[in-house]
Amino acid sequence: MERIYLYDTTLRDGAQREGMSLSVEDKLRIAHKLDELGVPFIEGGWPGANPKDDQFFERLHSTRFKHSAVVPFCSTRRPQVRASEDAGLRKILAAGTEWVTTFGKCWELHVHEGLRTSLEENLAMIEDTVAFFRTQDRRVIFDCEHWFDGYYKNPEYALAALRAAAHAGAQWVVLCDTNGGMLPQQIRTSVEAVRDYCREHNLEVQLGIHTHNDSETAVANALAAVEAGARMVHGTVNGYGERCGNANLCALIPNLQLKMNYALIAPEQLARLTEVSHFVSEVANLAPNDHAAYVGASAFAHKGGIHVSAVQRNPQTYEHIVPESVGNRRRIVISDQAGLSNVLTKLTEMGFSFERHDPAVGRILQQIKLLESEGYQFEAAEASFELLVRECLEIRKSLFSLEGLYTACQTFPDGTVRSEATVRVRVGEVLQHTAADGNGPVSALDAALRKALVGCYPQVAGMHLVDYKVRILDSAHGTSARTRVLVESSDGLGRWTTIGVSANIIEASCRAVIEGIEYGLSR
Amino acid sequence: MERIYLYDTTLRDGAQREGMSLSVEDKLRIAHKLDELGVPFIEGGWPGANPKDDQFFERLHSTRFKHSAVVPFCSTRRPQVRASEDAGLRKILAAGTEWVTTFGKCWELHVHEGLRTSLEENLAMIEDTVAFFRTQDRRVIFDCEHWFDGYYKNPEYALAALRAAAHAGAQWVVLCDTNGGMLPQQIRTSVEAVRDYCREHNLEVQLGIHTHNDSETAVANALAAVEAGARMVHGTVNGYGERCGNANLCALIPNLQLKMNYALIAPEQLARLTEVSHFVSEVANLAPNDHAAYVGASAFAHKGGIHVSAVQRNPQTYEHIVPESVGNRRRIVISDQAGLSNVLTKLTEMGFSFERHDPAVGRILQQIKLLESEGYQFEAAEASFELLVRECLEIRKSLFSLEGLYTACQTFPDGTVRSEATVRVRVGEVLQHTAADGNGPVSALDAALRKALVGCYPQVAGMHLVDYKVRILDSAHGTSARTRVLVESSDGLGRWTTIGVSANIIEASCRAVIEGIEYGLSR
Repeated sequence: MERIYLYDTTLRDGAQREGMSLSVEDKLRIAHKLDELGVPFIEGGWPGANPKDDQFFERLHSTRFKHSAVVPFCSTRRPQVRASEDAGLRKILAAGTEWVTTFGKCWELHVHEGLRTSLEENLAMIEDTVAFFRTQDRRVIFDCEHWFDGYYKNPEYALAALRAAAHAGAQWVVLCDTNGGMLPQQIRTSVEAVRDYCREHNLEVQLGIHTHNDSETAVANALAAVEAGARMVHGTVNGYGERCGNANLCALIPNLQLKMNYALIAPEQLARLTEVSHFVSEVANLAPNDHAAYVGASAFAHKGGIHVSAVQRNPQTYEHIVPESVGNRRRIVISDQAGLSNVLTKLTEMGFSFERHDPAVGRILQQIKLLESEGYQFEAAEASFELLVRECLEIRKSLFSLEGLYTACQTFPDGTVRSEATVRVRVGEVLQHTAADGNGPVSALDAALRKALVGCYPQVAGMHLVDYKVRILDSAHGTSARTRVLVESSDGLGRWTTIGVSANIIEASCRAVIEGIEYGLSR
Repeated sequence: MERIYLYDTTLRDGAQREGMSLSVEDKLRIAHKLDELGVPFIEGGWPGANPKDDQFFERLHSTRFKHSAVVPFCSTRRPQVRASEDAGLRKILAAGTEWVTTFGKCWELHVHEGLRTSLEENLAMIEDTVAFFRTQDRRVIFDCEHWFDGYYKNPEYALAALRAAAHAGAQWVVLCDTNGGMLPQQIRTSVEAVRDYCREHNLEVQLGIHTHNDSETAVANALAAVEAGARMVHGTVNGYGERCGNANLCALIPNLQLKMNYALIAPEQLARLTEVSHFVSEVANLAPNDHAAYVGASAFAHKGGIHVSAVQRNPQTYEHIVPESVGNRRRIVISDQAGLSNVLTKLTEMGFSFERHDPAVGRILQQIKLLESEGYQFEAAEASFELLVRECLEIRKSLFSLEGLYTACQTFPDGTVRSEATVRVRVGEVLQHTAADGNGPVSALDAALRKALVGCYPQVAGMHLVDYKVRILDSAHGTSARTRVLVESSDGLGRWTTIGVSANIIEASCRAVIEGIEYGLSR
């Protein structure tokens, strides 16, 4: 199996995504996770461009990675300045890394419009910069910025830029589709031409590929480049990046390794891909894409009744790979398209055993459809689903009931805000009437409920909310639309999710919080 | 320019997406929008499979489309039954359409595991079903289900299935990658082989392609098939579909038309693509993907300072197509990576004119960075941004001030919930102290504010909230995390968006609602 070298640029190009902002701490956590995944190159940022990237590279001095080299990124020297006197390049050296990546212009238009210098000076800038880093014992990756646009407009000039980097000692030259507009066949043609050019001219460089998703073909473009001879692949976790994003490593890695038989990372590292994807979206505070290839929560979800029975007989019928090979899993989805098969499978997973024609199963299905028509969705709220099943089977224990709730928020002239909740909670014969403060009405309500229950159920002291999600349904109606709240609770050992729906956000939250406590107590 | 026939399956395969549910009314609205876009084939659903699809086709009898044929979808006849006696097929005829699409198994495994019948019977089912529809004067599209998996396991059997459909009179045979696991080169090889086979055997059918996104290459797979000879392309708006979705028409159409020079729809129809994408996500009540190729809000967004100045000199430098050709537009993004150039551009758009070194511009930039560090984001809240600018320039008019706010929600033993807000609002010398009810605390607050202001500012009577979005920042902290609220307001003539951030959802909502009213009054 031939080796492909992964080059992750989540921390640099990925962080350009609109709405994404990573702290130095975030960047370090992600770098460690990429190291665990076995990514050989991690582009860490541009030291000198902003204080965050400076700090990141400083903190790296005291960090050890097992599999990864962290690489700084910079432009070639400024026009009309010697490389050794360019303050920007000196900052890159100060990062003290084994490898550096520098990018240079390969498209005439950008030399004129962007750099505003001559074509000759741009070639000198490339050659000088790479040569300078080589004299300082750095190994150099040269990014051919705007390669494909440049190549198709003026191949001679683009190749002259590439040759300048190769002659000066770059080990890798990476062909970049900076504007992301290329289609796979254009990528293939140009990479093949470069491969042949390098052979004919004895240029001892290896080729890399860096693609963007502006035509929704970033992954396929990178695959086409590999087929044409590229051996380094740039991308980001979850395809994060400016505009439409970069090539998505979470799709590229399994495509190359499981389907095209290249060697990238160890199978046990690949089995952590889903975890890495979710970790990065969590650190970046971006909602994960449930529909992402390979790693999305829906990637191996089966909804239709026929699918479900066939996939259970033989997974190959509806699954293109074994979900566990990328750390994902098959899911049988509960939804209004669910037939009896799905509900039966789900019940079996939960430890119940029913015959297909048991009337209880029909009752459960009917209840699901009714609640879904009101905006409930049990796909992500399995704890609420389990309570619903127990309800239908008349085995749901009544642990407590809320007989009254009052929440208030008040702002004072000095700008302070106070949120308070009052609850009346009955446990058997005892009525607890108590109140608590919170950062907002929902945390006040949660605190008041726990305060009311802790006497009878000491376990609630160890439970807490870990996530709270709000979605406005039918949002065209403004604030009178219905609100769906998902609450994730934890007792330190496990996590579970519950749901509440109402026109009133407080009531929806209250339902989800109450079911979260009830489910926790019944575990 | 050679013609490619678009075949939209948003209403059938797209609606299989987890979390998506379309009413009959939704399906009709989407069908009309696709007609306006100029899509020749719209797969409407499976009459007989569920009451919703029955109703949809019934309502079509009284509907006229200008460009589109709506097509019903169904499986081949059941085993061991005559086509003319199959109740399912009769329901398809009852839809009274010119075209029908029927799908049949082309993979041995599915004949055994799914249909549980013999290979010969499956071929007869295909031939009979197509022939039956032909005798009833229907034109037939035959979907070769699991084509590629079948072709690579047993090409003879797959080709026998295709031949059965062609001999019986199908006009189109569509090669389907049902499990979505193929890569572009596998698609290309198989489509080329089928094209050659049809030529050699004088089969008078045209080829179509139907791809899924499980390898994140659905779009590229369809392009490869077109290059190999397919002339009908199946896909869905925004790539909706089960698991990882179908091929995304919003990327396929411009790739084929603008970059590969095929004829699909008129240029003025293409210029509505962004609108169609947003319309469908709105009707489906799914958040639009801001990072979608071509149609996403970020697709032509420029963030970095260098980009912004270059793209203004020459758009080609950083844009792969003219955004307006697909109905999108260039955006200069306000963010913490924003340099002076971006802020200056934005100010110019707003009608201000400043020199680069004006200290006011520096103050604005500083204030943006401060607020963004607290969780504000002005990318989507341009009205709040404008108020911020006026504040920094000391030209923000004080129209009113909120001196006190009290919101309460109470649930009663009978299950009813009441939400109430009390506000103290000062306009000049006058203090209005009033209260209102609402469906929840935010609508109560909005109603109370308008009630307090309508005496001094009668215009507020014509303003209302049209959208309300909640995002929990740093959601790992549960309910004590910060909440970001975006509010969209309208006065019937225009719409504008404002933002509020706070640990307290009520306070965050209040800030956004107040700025919404203030901005509306200052228009």
